[in-house]
Amino acid sequence: MTYNTVVRKLYTEHGFGGRSGFGRQPAVVVIDLARSWLDDASLQGSSRLEPVLASTLAVLKAARDAGHPVFFTTMRPDPVDIRGPVGRKLPHMSSETTLGQADSMAELDPRLERRADEPLFVKPRASAFWGTPFDAYLTARNIDTLVITGCSTSGCIRATAESAHNRNLHAIVVREAVGDRSEVAHEANLTDIDLRYADVEGLDAVVAYLRRTRAPS
Amino acid sequence: MTYNTVVRKLYTEHGFGGRSGFGRQPAVVVIDLARSWLDDASLQGSSRLEPVLASTLAVLKAARDAGHPVFFTTMRPDPVDIRGPVGRKLPHMSSETTLGQADSMAELDPRLERRADEPLFVKPRASAFWGTPFDAYLTARNIDTLVITGCSTSGCIRATAESAHNRNLHAIVVREAVGDRSEVAHEANLTDIDLRYADVEGLDAVVAYLRRTRAPS
Amino acid sequence: MTYNTVVRKLYTEHGFGGRSGFGRQPAVVVIDLARSWLDDASLQGSSRLEPVLASTLAVLKAARDAGHPVFFTTMRPDPVDIRGPVGRKLPHMSSETTLGQADSMAELDPRLERRADEPLFVKPRASAFWGTPFDAYLTARNIDTLVITGCSTSGCIRATAESAHNRNLHAIVVREAVGDRSEVAHEANLTDIDLRYADVEGLDAVVAYLRRTRAPS
Amino acid sequence: MTYNTVVRKLYTEHGFGGRSGFGRQPAVVVIDLARSWLDDASLQGSSRLEPVLASTLAVLKAARDAGHPVFFTTMRPDPVDIRGPVGRKLPHMSSETTLGQADSMAELDPRLERRADEPLFVKPRASAFWGTPFDAYLTARNIDTLVITGCSTSGCIRATAESAHNRNLHAIVVREAVGDRSEVAHEANLTDIDLRYADVEGLDAVVAYLRRTRAPS
Repeated sequence: MTYNTVVRKLYTEHGFGGRSGFGRQPAVVVIDLARSWLDDASLQGSSRLEPVLASTLAVLKAARDAGHPVFFTTMRPDPVDIRGPVGRKLPHMSSETTLGQADSMAELDPRLERRADEPLFVKPRASAFWGTPFDAYLTARNIDTLVITGCSTSGCIRATAESAHNRNLHAIVVREAVGDRSEVAHEANLTDIDLRYADVEGLDAVVAYLRRTRAPS
Repeated sequence: MTYNTVVRKLYTEHGFGGRSGFGRQPAVVVIDLARSWLDDASLQGSSRLEPVLASTLAVLKAARDAGHPVFFTTMRPDPVDIRGPVGRKLPHMSSETTLGQADSMAELDPRLERRADEPLFVKPRASAFWGTPFDAYLTARNIDTLVITGCSTSGCIRATAESAHNRNLHAIVVREAVGDRSEVAHEANLTDIDLRYADVEGLDAVVAYLRRTRAPS
Repeated sequence: MTYNTVVRKLYTEHGFGGRSGFGRQPAVVVIDLARSWLDDASLQGSSRLEPVLASTLAVLKAARDAGHPVFFTTMRPDPVDIRGPVGRKLPHMSSETTLGQADSMAELDPRLERRADEPLFVKPRASAFWGTPFDAYLTARNIDTLVITGCSTSGCIRATAESAHNRNLHAIVVREAVGDRSEVAHEANLTDIDLRYADVEGLDAVVAYLRRTRAPS
Repeated sequence: MTYNTVVRKLYTEHGFGGRSGFGRQPAVVVIDLARSWLDDASLQGSSRLEPVLASTLAVLKAARDAGHPVFFTTMRPDPVDIRGPVGRKLPHMSSETTLGQADSMAELDPRLERRADEPLFVKPRASAFWGTPFDAYLTARNIDTLVITGCSTSGCIRATAESAHNRNLHAIVVREAVGDRSEVAHEANLTDIDLRYADVEGLDAVVAYLRRTRAPS
């Protein structure tokens, strides 16, 4: 009995796990696909996120072809910030072997080919919305649907999905385009996300949706 | 191999799961221990949260004896709000069998004996901080530590712990005083919470901490 | 030389005071038109806001006829909240002669005839967005334009206009439908609002805009 | 009859303008004292803010001597952000003659001598709190008092004071250490700030407070 089987059954009986559905005006946000996650020189590089990157590239191509807004995030912890409880809870933020290492590891993977009009938010916490002006960018383009890819499922993906849900956005997590250090954590959190915050949808369905939807003028 | 064993090992190796520790000035927040969770007439009443209530009462007694601030939350979905994606994702919000039923089910369990100077926030989302003025109340009392009890672990407890962590509060989740509809979801999310957002501490340790700490003047 | 003449000239030269314009999908928010402002028994009742109420009723009629969403706010200070700096700065919050008086004074003026599907937010601070879930309601209806009426110009109107501007909403303040205890403060703050945050537009223009714009489906 | 005389009298009678007072643990934030404000090559350079800079340096010296946390902000508008209503309302954001000019104009005035452990927030809006993680930095150091200097009084100073007030911080604006493009707007907004959001205090009183108060451990 997997997490998904057990928890989904119970939660569905309790009235969770509805479909928020695709909305009228989507944007894509790519969470933290930095070199730290995809470089073998990084501890996190062992997370085997190459398929996640490949699926994200497919999402990006569809969004860019259709003219939908695209956003990126990365993390670059501030030494003053992490002197507090945040840094004590998350020692990796100040570790040289993971995120806290050379600034170069916070750079986006170059295969994402970020364009000049695709904003990059350096986010201080898990959610792309926390401590950033992200939501104002979405309002300016009349976005009602946020397609989420990147990593990690149990951290920044879940937190971003929750934030999008809180704001009454249609939150969509692309199953093949999100990943985690732990496959076990990935599966459990995908279930929770789908039951509570965002529709977890397959890559093909999301690509088709992005292609058939008109971009904002 | 449990979720906790597998995920904790990997995440600890990656620099998660530090201790934020107890801070200097605690407050207690009791999340959503409403009649809907503890009344047999409610579907959620089957969640067997009596031990969670009993542990919460022990936390409350320690906090009140020492003079620490106490806060409560409950949910009472607004029909206009849940016409959007939030309501589509969470059908229980408009269901008569769960939260959406008679307003009386949103009332706090009377055994909590809320006092006149213990604010009650009707929170519109999972986190006690979202869409409420909660953080201003904490600042006014110089609170740096938030002790969290109530339900559910995979929803409002995790979301509130994440919010408290985001603000650089020392976030403390009391193991015996939080619960979930699903024991499986409870265990997995307690692990994630402890690795990422809040220290999960036992009831005795938290009660001792509250008793030995001076309240704000 | 009035405030408007002097400040507008200088600020316009410095690149302020552009027109954000009317957007595609408006909503109306009526700020704090409670009995405390319109009842002769209240100190604030001396503010002569009857014309503001009359203009607000004209805005409401146009919005309701066209099917645009309508929102209301009022204030009801919490005794715990105002023990902190907020209450020390604003003694009227705990005064029996103004807002802090009988709860009945926080009730909306009955002539507003609030409908069941028009949410009322009890806002803890000047801005309708602060400590409330207001923005999620706007996202759910794809609102990009917020029409603001009520009082007071130098407090809650300006703060709400700033918040709407921050979120990249088209913020519109209706000149005849906002008022203040002080005519001097009213004029100065209308100027600042128009230069920095929201277009200050006449009643007729706003009513025509609401009537010609299709409501959200 | 000045703005201050007229408005203060009326608002004081209505229960505004109390003293929030100095709190136990202060921090200083210096708002937007960038080269754009102090360089003759900039349009804003005509604002004659040299005395404001000098007073800010006196505040900084007192804070640094005593070990209190110090923060800075500046603005650097994002071309994508200002395509929306924000940029239409504020044409200067995209103008080459003011803020939108060479990035070098967003650099802090070098006389401020920002230190490595004094965070600089690039804020997207008027308030230092909006779209930034500023409040988490304050919580981490148990700050309950925010001393505000810089410019401009009618924009970023007022907005930051309002945000600090909203959070129940003791907000203190240093009279000699804040300035505006317009002396008329400066005076009117200082009055509104003092009546509604922050205590406007003289330089000597603030310096003495910073010197006599122990810094966080």
